[in-house]
Amino acid sequence: MTAETNPQILNLPVGLSATGTRQEFDSLGKVEVPANHYWGAQTQRSLLHFNIGHDKMPLEVYRAYGYVKKAAAIVNTKAGRLPEWKGKLIEQVADEAITGKLDSEFPLYVWQTGSGTQSNMNMNEVISNRCIQLVGGVLGSQEPIHPNDHVNMGQSSNDTFPTAMHIAAYKMAVEKTIPALIKLRDAIDQKSQQWMGVVKIGRTHLEDATPLTVGQEWSGYVGALDDAIADVKQATEGLLQVAMGGTAVGTGLNSPVGFGEEVAAVLTQLTGFQIKTADNKFTAQGTLDRMVRAHAALKTAAVTLFKIANDMRWLGSGPRTGLMELVFPSNEPGSSIMPGKVNPTQAEAMLMVCIQIMGSDVAVQMGGAEGNFELNAFRPVIISNYLHSALIMADMCDHFRAYMIEGATLNEAQIKSNIDRSVMMVTALSPVIGYDQASVIAHYAIDKDLTLKEAALANGVTEALYDQVVVPINMTQPGSADIKAPASK
Amino acid sequence: MTAETNPQILNLPVGLSATGTRQEFDSLGKVEVPANHYWGAQTQRSLLHFNIGHDKMPLEVYRAYGYVKKAAAIVNTKAGRLPEWKGKLIEQVADEAITGKLDSEFPLYVWQTGSGTQSNMNMNEVISNRCIQLVGGVLGSQEPIHPNDHVNMGQSSNDTFPTAMHIAAYKMAVEKTIPALIKLRDAIDQKSQQWMGVVKIGRTHLEDATPLTVGQEWSGYVGALDDAIADVKQATEGLLQVAMGGTAVGTGLNSPVGFGEEVAAVLTQLTGFQIKTADNKFTAQGTLDRMVRAHAALKTAAVTLFKIANDMRWLGSGPRTGLMELVFPSNEPGSSIMPGKVNPTQAEAMLMVCIQIMGSDVAVQMGGAEGNFELNAFRPVIISNYLHSALIMADMCDHFRAYMIEGATLNEAQIKSNIDRSVMMVTALSPVIGYDQASVIAHYAIDKDLTLKEAALANGVTEALYDQVVVPINMTQPGSADIKAPASK
Amino acid sequence: MTAETNPQILNLPVGLSATGTRQEFDSLGKVEVPANHYWGAQTQRSLLHFNIGHDKMPLEVYRAYGYVKKAAAIVNTKAGRLPEWKGKLIEQVADEAITGKLDSEFPLYVWQTGSGTQSNMNMNEVISNRCIQLVGGVLGSQEPIHPNDHVNMGQSSNDTFPTAMHIAAYKMAVEKTIPALIKLRDAIDQKSQQWMGVVKIGRTHLEDATPLTVGQEWSGYVGALDDAIADVKQATEGLLQVAMGGTAVGTGLNSPVGFGEEVAAVLTQLTGFQIKTADNKFTAQGTLDRMVRAHAALKTAAVTLFKIANDMRWLGSGPRTGLMELVFPSNEPGSSIMPGKVNPTQAEAMLMVCIQIMGSDVAVQMGGAEGNFELNAFRPVIISNYLHSALIMADMCDHFRAYMIEGATLNEAQIKSNIDRSVMMVTALSPVIGYDQASVIAHYAIDKDLTLKEAALANGVTEALYDQVVVPINMTQPGSADIKAPASK
Amino acid sequence: MTAETNPQILNLPVGLSATGTRQEFDSLGKVEVPANHYWGAQTQRSLLHFNIGHDKMPLEVYRAYGYVKKAAAIVNTKAGRLPEWKGKLIEQVADEAITGKLDSEFPLYVWQTGSGTQSNMNMNEVISNRCIQLVGGVLGSQEPIHPNDHVNMGQSSNDTFPTAMHIAAYKMAVEKTIPALIKLRDAIDQKSQQWMGVVKIGRTHLEDATPLTVGQEWSGYVGALDDAIADVKQATEGLLQVAMGGTAVGTGLNSPVGFGEEVAAVLTQLTGFQIKTADNKFTAQGTLDRMVRAHAALKTAAVTLFKIANDMRWLGSGPRTGLMELVFPSNEPGSSIMPGKVNPTQAEAMLMVCIQIMGSDVAVQMGGAEGNFELNAFRPVIISNYLHSALIMADMCDHFRAYMIEGATLNEAQIKSNIDRSVMMVTALSPVIGYDQASVIAHYAIDKDLTLKEAALANGVTEALYDQVVVPINMTQPGSADIKAPASK
Repeated sequence: MTAETNPQILNLPVGLSATGTRQEFDSLGKVEVPANHYWGAQTQRSLLHFNIGHDKMPLEVYRAYGYVKKAAAIVNTKAGRLPEWKGKLIEQVADEAITGKLDSEFPLYVWQTGSGTQSNMNMNEVISNRCIQLVGGVLGSQEPIHPNDHVNMGQSSNDTFPTAMHIAAYKMAVEKTIPALIKLRDAIDQKSQQWMGVVKIGRTHLEDATPLTVGQEWSGYVGALDDAIADVKQATEGLLQVAMGGTAVGTGLNSPVGFGEEVAAVLTQLTGFQIKTADNKFTAQGTLDRMVRAHAALKTAAVTLFKIANDMRWLGSGPRTGLMELVFPSNEPGSSIMPGKVNPTQAEAMLMVCIQIMGSDVAVQMGGAEGNFELNAFRPVIISNYLHSALIMADMCDHFRAYMIEGATLNEAQIKSNIDRSVMMVTALSPVIGYDQASVIAHYAIDKDLTLKEAALANGVTEALYDQVVVPINMTQPGSADIKAPASK
Repeated sequence: MTAETNPQILNLPVGLSATGTRQEFDSLGKVEVPANHYWGAQTQRSLLHFNIGHDKMPLEVYRAYGYVKKAAAIVNTKAGRLPEWKGKLIEQVADEAITGKLDSEFPLYVWQTGSGTQSNMNMNEVISNRCIQLVGGVLGSQEPIHPNDHVNMGQSSNDTFPTAMHIAAYKMAVEKTIPALIKLRDAIDQKSQQWMGVVKIGRTHLEDATPLTVGQEWSGYVGALDDAIADVKQATEGLLQVAMGGTAVGTGLNSPVGFGEEVAAVLTQLTGFQIKTADNKFTAQGTLDRMVRAHAALKTAAVTLFKIANDMRWLGSGPRTGLMELVFPSNEPGSSIMPGKVNPTQAEAMLMVCIQIMGSDVAVQMGGAEGNFELNAFRPVIISNYLHSALIMADMCDHFRAYMIEGATLNEAQIKSNIDRSVMMVTALSPVIGYDQASVIAHYAIDKDLTLKEAALANGVTEALYDQVVVPINMTQPGSADIKAPASK
Repeated sequence: MTAETNPQILNLPVGLSATGTRQEFDSLGKVEVPANHYWGAQTQRSLLHFNIGHDKMPLEVYRAYGYVKKAAAIVNTKAGRLPEWKGKLIEQVADEAITGKLDSEFPLYVWQTGSGTQSNMNMNEVISNRCIQLVGGVLGSQEPIHPNDHVNMGQSSNDTFPTAMHIAAYKMAVEKTIPALIKLRDAIDQKSQQWMGVVKIGRTHLEDATPLTVGQEWSGYVGALDDAIADVKQATEGLLQVAMGGTAVGTGLNSPVGFGEEVAAVLTQLTGFQIKTADNKFTAQGTLDRMVRAHAALKTAAVTLFKIANDMRWLGSGPRTGLMELVFPSNEPGSSIMPGKVNPTQAEAMLMVCIQIMGSDVAVQMGGAEGNFELNAFRPVIISNYLHSALIMADMCDHFRAYMIEGATLNEAQIKSNIDRSVMMVTALSPVIGYDQASVIAHYAIDKDLTLKEAALANGVTEALYDQVVVPINMTQPGSADIKAPASK
Repeated sequence: MTAETNPQILNLPVGLSATGTRQEFDSLGKVEVPANHYWGAQTQRSLLHFNIGHDKMPLEVYRAYGYVKKAAAIVNTKAGRLPEWKGKLIEQVADEAITGKLDSEFPLYVWQTGSGTQSNMNMNEVISNRCIQLVGGVLGSQEPIHPNDHVNMGQSSNDTFPTAMHIAAYKMAVEKTIPALIKLRDAIDQKSQQWMGVVKIGRTHLEDATPLTVGQEWSGYVGALDDAIADVKQATEGLLQVAMGGTAVGTGLNSPVGFGEEVAAVLTQLTGFQIKTADNKFTAQGTLDRMVRAHAALKTAAVTLFKIANDMRWLGSGPRTGLMELVFPSNEPGSSIMPGKVNPTQAEAMLMVCIQIMGSDVAVQMGGAEGNFELNAFRPVIISNYLHSALIMADMCDHFRAYMIEGATLNEAQIKSNIDRSVMMVTALSPVIGYDQASVIAHYAIDKDLTLKEAALANGVTEALYDQVVVPINMTQPGSADIKAPASK
């Protein structure tokens, strides 16, 4: 490397054609790394010491990290701490990270240092070497772009990693999870409106209860999803506060005054998200509570989705001996041994996804609780669980909607037959004849295997009264009867 | 009972002096109940069928139920559905429930019907019989105040029980839990301000890191509690929507038009809480998602509290071989065998309380997920866990504050000695001499067992530069050094 | 107190008639305690500092502690470390603790020091003062029986509390939980045998599947309970190893050689349980892994019970629009608004109990993980959750059995009708005509709303073949058809 | 395909060179699949309907499924249900699945049908087409080897999938997880023995306690791992019972008498594992309790590992202001901003792995509880969590051992200094001078900042007595003092 100032930036595509290994170094000494990769000594050490299972740090983290490195470079350059050509070069390579062009250079595992330092250094090393390549320098020389002194300037893993976590999580939530929840909600809402006039039997404790319309029932799902979406949105907003500017322990040592605020402003420009510097950097680095809250919102949404999918599969159970009110699309043969079987597979997958998210919430809450002093060192387990939950919830909602909800139809004959056979219509008589007498009629019907009307007439209710009061559609709203306390006996 | 209209209301204190048993009845027949209690047949059946463990339905639920019954009576009376004297009588007895005078009449267990019907009937029966007593009637006659037709008029367990749950939970949260969190936050904040100038060693990964002040560290706890309090408040607000008016399955059958809105308005007057009728009654009865969210906020607050208490006990560890930075009050002898031992018992109790709440969150989430169709029948397990978590968090915060935080003092000698011995002050040199050279110095200090200054001077740093740059108090804020990228080697 | 040797033991019943307060002391100074209780200074301090919520340390712990104190006194006396009269006196009072006569003297909360020291000192103080009372001494003088030097001789909270935990937990499991599980298993087994010949529709994915008998279905519950019982037994056996003899940190300091073994032998005599000294005292005091395992077995049993109760309530759903195969006893009216409603309340209570236990398992696992160095200081949260889970499981199994299983009957008409209408009988044809052709028939039946036989005949199956192959009872066992691969088309 | 009998088996390597798509069919119709893959219509449908997140059904399941298909073919051939050449052909291809040669043909996601049917059909389709290829047939013709009629003969997903689950889980546990636990245990045991004579300060409640040796402390970890290993082994043994032979609902319909037993015997031969047919097939298919138990054992082992790793990182904390008793290898630079920092990264990764496993246990327990009737349809979520937990535990134990434990050394100077400074040695005096007087000395030492000896002598203990009694190494075992109750004051 000859000229420090304004070297020519080469027009080289991402990629290294070298074979074998290359020597890199860090403060502990020299390390051989694969010559066809940009990463350096610390990445290679981590690969050796932490190749545990198959869980890789999600690429979303590195893409978000690209924004962090770019924003820091912009701020450092503007303030004259970095020569302009160095800053621009780092920006250019950060863009390659942001757009996924460097994805193959981030091989590290989730199970690594709890601060995410190894992933930060992976990012620093890759940007350093890619910059060096673009100025025709010597890979591994750490010149003229040093992974720590330049790419990491004014930063620490301790503030950048949670910043990248928040950005990656926010992005996933607003671009995938929330839209998928909304689209599912809208699809259910459409069915709700379509079926608002279809009277069906209600069920409480799994037992026959008073009627409601299918549309009403489904409006309950819509209402629950509205709440869930509002909650996920609100908790996700909490992620817009980022730790950047706190550096090692939250004090901002080795960063200039105002660095956190300036980086946040640039991040807002780059991402379009309303990113702010954290109110308190010691909170932002010593805890991951905002991540814990964001995941808690996902798990509560999972609670909602579990209930909906569970109802759906039961309502569609049959085809001859279940509840048989709903008919779902036959997406695939259901059985390897039972010909013609169709199963509520989308609902089952949804239930499993929800269970996974509820389990992950326990991992996230424990990881959140375990922070010590100036650093919560359980970041990788938290971000990997968060992104996993947010992704599978998003994809699952899309599939559940497309392959189960949108094609659902009603078995109206069964629905009507259930209404006709139920005895819980007796409830409408209760305000008129009293709870006790109504009970007598209901038990009489069941014991004698009669229709409710037969039982009512056999117990002194006139047909005129019965026909006036027991009208299923009227029972799906308040005010159906002129309710007054029955006179005492 | 002779005169239905306007009977004289007797001035009788709560209590029944009869002995032996009394006959009560319900739709399944006659039941003997203890003559010295107001409850009726259904309560007695539940006592027989569900005396499981020691867990009783919390009294807070019944006191909240008192509001529900009173509000319904007021609305029903105003609309002429109940004779005024009956309405007033129910109101009067409901007040006795609200103020705890009837606490001994609610003996049922948590493990009962999932709808809470048995507790609703317990309330209805007790009000009925107490009313009957007050008009000189025959206990168990269900006249002139019938438990279902009058006390439960226009209501179902299915809408009243979750209404009582929301009110009981909201009341506990706003009257106990949130104030206790705020007082703890304020106590920590006071210490934070008091100790804002005391420089101490920071720790990340439990390892020595760059310095911060004790006040800064504690401000991180304040920030985390601020977030937790805001979240608990927000989630608690969600409980102000109540199911009342939905009756059996959310349709409002057997309730008059507008009943839910009117009852909510009266409840607001009675409680002072801004109670509204639920946006969607099918959601409000088919799910308990708002309870799940309210508990999730408690558990995330528990995550925060766990971190704080855990830090505290570590910082106070010693007295001779731990971290020894904090000194806590000696509230009690710590050991039955080791004389003179003092332990961080308040912190341990806090950690256990937080663990309990995190475990309960799993019960609540599963209970929330398991609702079916028009009813979530996992109400008792959810409300009992919620009230338990909210109460032990409140009490624990009060005790942790009073017996650990408020009396805490600093071991300033130890804190200063730690700063003097640390080598992580080297970080301040990094922007000046570069990360790599700074690493050499740090390792040199540790390997040779030198102070950082000795090691720096031995590696070419001038004393003038060292003394200018390595100033602990300056390292507790950004901008301490004129940071520029070090020139490449 | 004058004579140390052989004082007269007074014949005084348990109880103190004094009023007001009495002065007690410990190493931190003097404390006023209620004069009508035996406890001393440390108990009183704990009551002040830890009155958190309503959760008291379970009485089972103190009763088990009675055995520990008695056994230690016996061993110490035999070795001459305690004068015989002192040893006998401690034994006598320990017996009062064992038999519950001193229950009212143990008022402490779960949320206390993590070692249980305060409960140990509560026990030591109560025994000390009760002994003093019995020799006519001065309460609070700690003479001639000192709470630490005599009652706690050779012991620490650190080894005695986990010993009491193991004994209390073991006792609860073998005396209540395991017998209740076995009785439930036997009740289900009886129904299984009774209904072994009743053919019913099987269901997979909630969808109609091939038939089995009701007895077979219930035998599956029996098999699952057999596994659960074996697992609970096995994990409970692990509790027979106790920490006694480890004293403060597992080394046995201040205990004589062989003390742990001798105490274990005496405990075996006293309890009838095969108690052994722990293989490794550092394990036994630094972890609570055997408690974690014992609770994990309870939670897996809860998984089993959840499945059974859930199946039951679904099979009994109806009475007109559910699955309607089972009929359960009508134990109580099911609804405050819907007359005549009967709900599967025992099953609901069981589901909630299981959910609570699964939540508690998360608390136990986290408490187990959090031990540090020579002590797991999360003992109270673990023992309180264990005893709670074991008790509510026991009681719930008893009630579920008595009030749901034993009175269950079959709706044989519905069961038969389901078999007649199902199309999944087609599976029996599959080995004969091939999976693909069988699928055609099944879909044809559903699309045209035909019986399976109608559909089969319409698609080329002869009536003779159909009647030979499609015989429901034959389909409930292997070998029903001479199965050969169908020739290729 | 012309000749059914004894066609020539071609010697073709695994692989399809075709491009574009190929038509396949199933009972719902025709589907285009990628021509370079063996899978058929149902696999392709699943790929479309369930491409949710990145979670693929683990390959271990398919390799285990290879054994299942091979064993079934052997048994079916021997009984003459399959022509010998067909049986041998299926066996040959099953071997390719077992050895991983067909790994690329199993692309399905975890989030699919809850029975695993789609993965079973994936296996059936791949074997079918690979067989067809080997006899020169037409891919997608399902002739002469039909995926259902031949590859799935006598089987259902409902019995084969849990069989494959059990085999895959058992294999992972016995080949990876248990050996890794044992090697970790042995490495710790070696250190324990090496350091058995090094006296160190004990800590309870994080506070200074009486001494023990480093070797004793580490023996506690060994004891805990011994227990964990025994428990994992025992729970894993439970997986040796397999469902095979139950077919659709546990009755064995469409399988010959004795099929389950014969397949189990062949599986034992093929795998070397002592596989048996399940005691009760309804249990084995209606529940996954044995999987739940196997995972519960992993999570309890995670509890143990969490405690050990947590202790380790604390004991190694420093290098200047922590506990500083242990020194771990410097595997990598610890910080991007703090030069020279070394962190306990292996311990942190271990803690995170343990947290993940504890979270997964919640998913597994809920999945286990949710089975309905004849099928637990939460298999994919359970097996994927199990294999994930078993794998990351195995790999993590290996790395923790190799990179943290084996290279650990003691900071003996610090350890000795801690002993010298501690006041908890006073405990040894307690049996001689009484607990109360010992307390006075301990408090005196701390208040006056004296050594224990100074404080003891200032409070009347003679130097001779002190030197005789307070000997740290003597305090690490029972019987160090002639313990008798001190005379009363």
